[in-house]
Amino acid sequence: MGGVQARIEHALARLLPPAQVAPARLHDAMRYATLEGGKRVRPLLTFAAGELAAASHERLEVAAAAVELIHAYSLVHDDLPCMDNDVLRRGKPTVHVEYDQATALLVGDALQSLAFQLLAEHRLADDARVQLEMVKTLAVATGSRGMAGGQQIDLESTGQSPSLPELEFMHIHKTGALIRAAVRLGAACEDSLNESESTRLNRCAKAVGLAFQVVDDVLAHDASTATLGKTAGKDSRQGKATYVSAMGVARARGLAEELRADAHGALQAFGERARRLRELADFIVLRKF
Amino acid sequence: MGGVQARIEHALARLLPPAQVAPARLHDAMRYATLEGGKRVRPLLTFAAGELAAASHERLEVAAAAVELIHAYSLVHDDLPCMDNDVLRRGKPTVHVEYDQATALLVGDALQSLAFQLLAEHRLADDARVQLEMVKTLAVATGSRGMAGGQQIDLESTGQSPSLPELEFMHIHKTGALIRAAVRLGAACEDSLNESESTRLNRCAKAVGLAFQVVDDVLAHDASTATLGKTAGKDSRQGKATYVSAMGVARARGLAEELRADAHGALQAFGERARRLRELADFIVLRKF
Repeated sequence: MGGVQARIEHALARLLPPAQVAPARLHDAMRYATLEGGKRVRPLLTFAAGELAAASHERLEVAAAAVELIHAYSLVHDDLPCMDNDVLRRGKPTVHVEYDQATALLVGDALQSLAFQLLAEHRLADDARVQLEMVKTLAVATGSRGMAGGQQIDLESTGQSPSLPELEFMHIHKTGALIRAAVRLGAACEDSLNESESTRLNRCAKAVGLAFQVVDDVLAHDASTATLGKTAGKDSRQGKATYVSAMGVARARGLAEELRADAHGALQAFGERARRLRELADFIVLRKF
Repeated sequence: MGGVQARIEHALARLLPPAQVAPARLHDAMRYATLEGGKRVRPLLTFAAGELAAASHERLEVAAAAVELIHAYSLVHDDLPCMDNDVLRRGKPTVHVEYDQATALLVGDALQSLAFQLLAEHRLADDARVQLEMVKTLAVATGSRGMAGGQQIDLESTGQSPSLPELEFMHIHKTGALIRAAVRLGAACEDSLNESESTRLNRCAKAVGLAFQVVDDVLAHDASTATLGKTAGKDSRQGKATYVSAMGVARARGLAEELRADAHGALQAFGERARRLRELADFIVLRKF
């Protein structure tokens, strides 16, 4: 995983505008928001799904970077005072603290545009129609019926006690949509899977996406500020519904384990080609941070 | 122009998610931010450039809507308290006043995603590579080297006295980039212009884009709150540089007139095909609101 992570870091550093180019402060802040941070789960999923489809690393780097730019933009906007009002992210001051709120707003906006620019300006599929489909996949996953929509549902559920189905609906949008897109984009970089393989891959992506959120909630419940690099226990203090608040920590751990098994089940028929995806599903559920 | 405007309104109403679909509050706010408002200058330019290239109205509706969604998103974010802190827009409460700041943030984010979704999911060019080029054009115009970058330069120039070249650099990004993209996207819907025609069309778009901003500055200087529908004189109160503050109102009017002549010059060889574009250049410079 380390080699792929380094590849992703280099790709992001190369594909983001240089900090010297005007407007320098904006570009500097875009790099600050994106580089040297995070577990890179989504781009790792893009690479792992790409391996399944035998896609080239050159294409996967761009697709993975586009997905990570969307994730980075969402974090910058989520951290703003009018949203979660977080001052720490990955152990560093958040963008609006390090720069200012107006710049943070523009950083998020411009990272989103850059993601779509990357998907359009590099050759990522032999058939341009497939590549347009990739743009659509990322746009839907990002927008009001994907990640942004999930954020809105999250906002509205604060202080409420959503049912488990409602919580799942929220997370399928808020984190799940982009994770599923990360997987689909990886596979699309080499359009070689048949329909039943695509269906199984989507099932794996759905399980992994939900597992990611369940484990996040468990870890947020457990963690201290020092080890997590963000203000721990914040979600529950703000009255946000989590899997832990909805079902208790033991059942939440059990659910994560079930989802991991489901992901493995969906990958079974792929054999050795799905090695990285299996490793990632395990990493996502078993991680301690 | 009226018929085209009605067409654009219908297209936006059709292409935005229905207000009943979950998350309903977000979709309702996206429609509030976009529908029934504005002069629709950018989508009108898309239609006018499309007429030049003999593009179909079906394609132009989608391309024009995508451009207008980007414009609408930028207004919602610009109005936020951390940016211009405006409470009125087009005579109505701004989105963060009518809904709340967090929702306004997500409205802007989701409108941007939807613009790229539209460009990817409808068939807008016979050659899919041309359509990918359209996605790239809009992304570059929207991002850090386009509109968002211009906003950043604007932020940094507040309270400064930028030179005229600096002011022009800012506006070429802040408003000019999207106006040029609006024109290019219209022409791209029917890939029929030769290179010299494209060059002339771009020259016209550049002149129109700059003229639009110069006239905006002149009108903001003249107007009262009542007739403009937003808090008039705000830019100069906040110490923002405008063409009027940089060169005086008489010279700014003269510059707008020069730019109009330049746009007409660039269109001359197109004959009757450029009728709408000429009308729009005139409208942009001669408008009183």
